[in-house]
Amino acid sequence: MTMTARPYNFSAGPAALPEEVLQQAAAEMLDWHGSGMSVMEMSHRGREFISIAEAAEADLRELLAVPADFRILFMQGGGLAENAIVPLNLSRGGAADFVVTGAWSQKSAKEAQRYCDAKVAASNAEGGHLSIPAAAGWALRADARYVHLCSNETIHGVEFQTLPDLAALGSTAELVIDCSSHILSRTIDWSRVGLAFAGAQKNIGPAGVTIVIVREDLLGHALAICPSAFDYRLVADNASMYNTPPTYGIYIAGLVFQWIKRQGGVAEMERRAIEKAGLLYGYLDGAGAGFYVNRIDPACRSRMNVPFQLRDESLNADFLKGAQERGLLQLKGHKSVGGMRASIYNAMPLAGVQALVDYLRTFAAARG
Amino acid sequence: MTMTARPYNFSAGPAALPEEVLQQAAAEMLDWHGSGMSVMEMSHRGREFISIAEAAEADLRELLAVPADFRILFMQGGGLAENAIVPLNLSRGGAADFVVTGAWSQKSAKEAQRYCDAKVAASNAEGGHLSIPAAAGWALRADARYVHLCSNETIHGVEFQTLPDLAALGSTAELVIDCSSHILSRTIDWSRVGLAFAGAQKNIGPAGVTIVIVREDLLGHALAICPSAFDYRLVADNASMYNTPPTYGIYIAGLVFQWIKRQGGVAEMERRAIEKAGLLYGYLDGAGAGFYVNRIDPACRSRMNVPFQLRDESLNADFLKGAQERGLLQLKGHKSVGGMRASIYNAMPLAGVQALVDYLRTFAAARG
Repeated sequence: MTMTARPYNFSAGPAALPEEVLQQAAAEMLDWHGSGMSVMEMSHRGREFISIAEAAEADLRELLAVPADFRILFMQGGGLAENAIVPLNLSRGGAADFVVTGAWSQKSAKEAQRYCDAKVAASNAEGGHLSIPAAAGWALRADARYVHLCSNETIHGVEFQTLPDLAALGSTAELVIDCSSHILSRTIDWSRVGLAFAGAQKNIGPAGVTIVIVREDLLGHALAICPSAFDYRLVADNASMYNTPPTYGIYIAGLVFQWIKRQGGVAEMERRAIEKAGLLYGYLDGAGAGFYVNRIDPACRSRMNVPFQLRDESLNADFLKGAQERGLLQLKGHKSVGGMRASIYNAMPLAGVQALVDYLRTFAAARG
Repeated sequence: MTMTARPYNFSAGPAALPEEVLQQAAAEMLDWHGSGMSVMEMSHRGREFISIAEAAEADLRELLAVPADFRILFMQGGGLAENAIVPLNLSRGGAADFVVTGAWSQKSAKEAQRYCDAKVAASNAEGGHLSIPAAAGWALRADARYVHLCSNETIHGVEFQTLPDLAALGSTAELVIDCSSHILSRTIDWSRVGLAFAGAQKNIGPAGVTIVIVREDLLGHALAICPSAFDYRLVADNASMYNTPPTYGIYIAGLVFQWIKRQGGVAEMERRAIEKAGLLYGYLDGAGAGFYVNRIDPACRSRMNVPFQLRDESLNADFLKGAQERGLLQLKGHKSVGGMRASIYNAMPLAGVQALVDYLRTFAAARG
């Protein structure tokens, strides 16, 4: 099979996948490892698929150094469903505090109000979600069951560089993190976390798989109104097969985990993320600053999602048209923020970011 | 690419897919229609994926002759999640009646009790789920918002050959059908139905996609505790993209819909189903009756899921081993029923059922 160069896809999610993963998936589509079946055709109760699911879980556990007292669940519904599923399982109908740093944490706080006493403990909404409020100023309540934050805001491009130590802040609440858009691009300090969730469609692969990593002792407290399919205790007790799991998505996620391991693991992903983000922000802040702008506080800029604007927004359509012609895809910003957004997840090679910076430079020179 | 003959996969779900569909998916894996992207990598908001989703919906609407006042939703969570999502959306906290004909309708009734006054109106549990109670004897309540039934019981092999006419029974309730395991194998009389749902992983394809077809006027009545991601009104208003949909699964489902259209539509699927089921039941009831047994009332035997037992169950392991060696896969029955089960969905060719009957005959001759 001959292959021409693939374009670079900067979609915020669903997003680019490693070419090696797609090639392997294509090669195995009709016959997985001599089974005579596509992975899509396998019973989730059969030994073939169970081996795939177990390997995916073990590889993810290894990659993120997940401690033995945490369970890894493969679920459905994405981050948006987790906004309900987390309070259904963890709030016990009590208090939960939310740190709002962008659109996603805001949505989470609003949805949780259906199930518990959800309150915003801190927000960066004033000024437009450009920085992270200092943890010392968060209005944490003594009776909060958990504190929710979105550790990387996909739309607003704000990322926590370290997770807060709630105990050091005098809180006994569990920390819940929505890490959908930067999972596997950096390590997670599990000593500070009770539950982490992530929709797979950003930094892992296929939409329709949701990863939940939760400390064992937090299971078993679901509200009576929690649908069985989303009761963490039932999901954990049934090895994520209480209902039929999204089998093909789990298989693809497993291939991505194997690919990350071959690259050198999460440490190597983080090294590359720092390099790629450094290249792009370096240009936007430096030579490109007269033509482009990124307004996020440099202390909390996301390594994964880089929103930026052309100072002359009348050039937006031309910019996007030229990018498309060069094979730089899906750069249009989210409608709520406008401008452009480059999502540079693990699967985006350095060459893709270089090609983007080259184009930014060329376009600015021609139109600036 | 050379291809040896594929085995026949009788899995109850996830289940066999048409080989043509898998070949097309493999060929398009790295570059869908010159887009330079895998379908898995496309933003769900981009024109490429929107065209895929719209075509899938239009093809499904055509295949099932879905009237214009019904909405088609692509959701997540499978039938098990719908057991909660349906009462969350339709019950308004009032009464709902359940006709129990097997494991799935029984689960549905139990789950609904979390959200409404759910009551079993009729059941075939006595005797072991072998026949369908006559509709005239169903204890339907005048104030029931809906009546739920599973129109094909995957585990117990019981299928409604016609849907009840609730109005003719004096009921004003809506009929809700779980048609997961026989959707697209026969027509649906929409004049008798308010809502139909189906997990895709039996007769459509990829696990992780749930199809909901619901009459427009039933939207907008979700309970306050319904998670937004599962509020039919929100899902419908956002063309199934309120949260990120399971994009690749929808693409594969769309390829299956196109395949069915090429074969001649649902009428041809039904003709084949009658032929395949007739061949298998004909043998079990005829020449094979001394060695094998199917205890389901012939009036409601499923065309899709055929549970049967060896009269001498000590031969089960040998039977399954021999089947596997001949490329007849996943024939082991559900643990709650025991024995064997052959699921012969749309993607199973007549030749597969012939091969199964040949093996049944050979095994009986050798061991009978």
